[in-house]
Amino acid sequence: MSYARQLLDTYPRTSNADAGVLAATIDALSDCAQACIADTEADLSEQDLAEMVKCIRLCLNCADVCAATRGVVTRQAEYDGNVTRPLLEACIAICTSCGDECARHAPHMAHCRVCEQACRRCEQACRELLGALK
Amino acid sequence: MSYARQLLDTYPRTSNADAGVLAATIDALSDCAQACIADTEADLSEQDLAEMVKCIRLCLNCADVCAATRGVVTRQAEYDGNVTRPLLEACIAICTSCGDECARHAPHMAHCRVCEQACRRCEQACRELLGALK
Amino acid sequence: MSYARQLLDTYPRTSNADAGVLAATIDALSDCAQACIADTEADLSEQDLAEMVKCIRLCLNCADVCAATRGVVTRQAEYDGNVTRPLLEACIAICTSCGDECARHAPHMAHCRVCEQACRRCEQACRELLGALK
Amino acid sequence: MSYARQLLDTYPRTSNADAGVLAATIDALSDCAQACIADTEADLSEQDLAEMVKCIRLCLNCADVCAATRGVVTRQAEYDGNVTRPLLEACIAICTSCGDECARHAPHMAHCRVCEQACRRCEQACRELLGALK
Repeated sequence: MSYARQLLDTYPRTSNADAGVLAATIDALSDCAQACIADTEADLSEQDLAEMVKCIRLCLNCADVCAATRGVVTRQAEYDGNVTRPLLEACIAICTSCGDECARHAPHMAHCRVCEQACRRCEQACRELLGALK
Repeated sequence: MSYARQLLDTYPRTSNADAGVLAATIDALSDCAQACIADTEADLSEQDLAEMVKCIRLCLNCADVCAATRGVVTRQAEYDGNVTRPLLEACIAICTSCGDECARHAPHMAHCRVCEQACRRCEQACRELLGALK
Repeated sequence: MSYARQLLDTYPRTSNADAGVLAATIDALSDCAQACIADTEADLSEQDLAEMVKCIRLCLNCADVCAATRGVVTRQAEYDGNVTRPLLEACIAICTSCGDECARHAPHMAHCRVCEQACRRCEQACRELLGALK
Repeated sequence: MSYARQLLDTYPRTSNADAGVLAATIDALSDCAQACIADTEADLSEQDLAEMVKCIRLCLNCADVCAATRGVVTRQAEYDGNVTRPLLEACIAICTSCGDECARHAPHMAHCRVCEQACRRCEQACRELLGALK
């Protein structure tokens, strides 16, 4: 069981959303941020750098937005839909476009294939959480 | 002149928005993130901690969202309104509520008065940039 | 298999250290950062806040240092012992003291018990990586 | 007066170090992190990308370490030399090497000239703070 899930299960308050959905989202956000940081490093190691520039920029944006979303979603007690909803929307949008760009490289770059999977999973998790929030 | 402005003036591409508006927003985001980190530390030093808990949580959220927004706004070449617009909206919402909470403490806590100013300035800067974006 | 490990296995260069050790460290750093963010939120929900202030501050420091260390360790191509070594030392020191403080609360606060485990595992992983680096 | 300085002047506790030195360091860390994020974006806009790869990686490392150091230095109440000292050493090392790499590009790239200045100023500020700490 992930630390995110264990910490939700020991949280002294009631959670805003189903603990399973919330923990899955937090784990997907952490994983996606890490995958994007590692994919940036791998992209910078490729021969044809001009081909990778868009992917690098999207990965940097995706890592930043996932990290912030993870923090805000974790701090449930001051939940505010006016913050969390647009933040999840921004996160879904960047995970989608970063995943799409990684998909373009995936056939010939295994690291982008892995990063694409992390982005897709995070996009789905954020969509599910957004649907579950009031 | 701030480093943000100097770097925009030496950027090898054309900026998406007026360099003055963009640099003012980036500086306001950096300042607000730092003010929120420092206000959290000051809040934790107060006697009546129960009174400060909401302020601490909002400051932590505000610092995270401002840092991510700063990164995304700085990386102009892959500008995507579907990411930047909701991110700025989330940032405006958290700067507003963090500023409001700091304002409640401002009459008797000078550190919250300073943090309120940083939040208000950041909220205004993000609104202006949001209005200037396509 | 974690995304960190998958991305190391698809990295276009040779890694600086054994991929298993490196991936375990990156995963432990991600987990510890997340556990500390979640434990801060749980600490702020406790009745006796004065008792939790030290834990909150150490968790905030630990989350920041783990996040930075994760990034630097991931970007292997510009490995520089003068940066990575003291950074790992700082990370080991904060994981130790954050783990110790969580251990004090662990008997009566389950969330601190979980966070202590994440800190201990991260401390061990960083020590192992530090020993494996040139 | 910067927000960092205003918040130090309104901090409810006594500071660990001279408020002027501390505020200058916090401001230099914020500025350097922002300069490195912006320089990464500018580097990615250059024609000869292979020439910029090292600079990008060092800037990413420098931004991460400066952000973490800023947080830890701001949270003074749980000051621990075993954390802050090696963290400042790591920060000085990465500011030095990032500044050196930017200096190589500075004659023909104005954005690297600006980033070099931010790195040099941050390196100096961290050295001064390290010297002032017990």
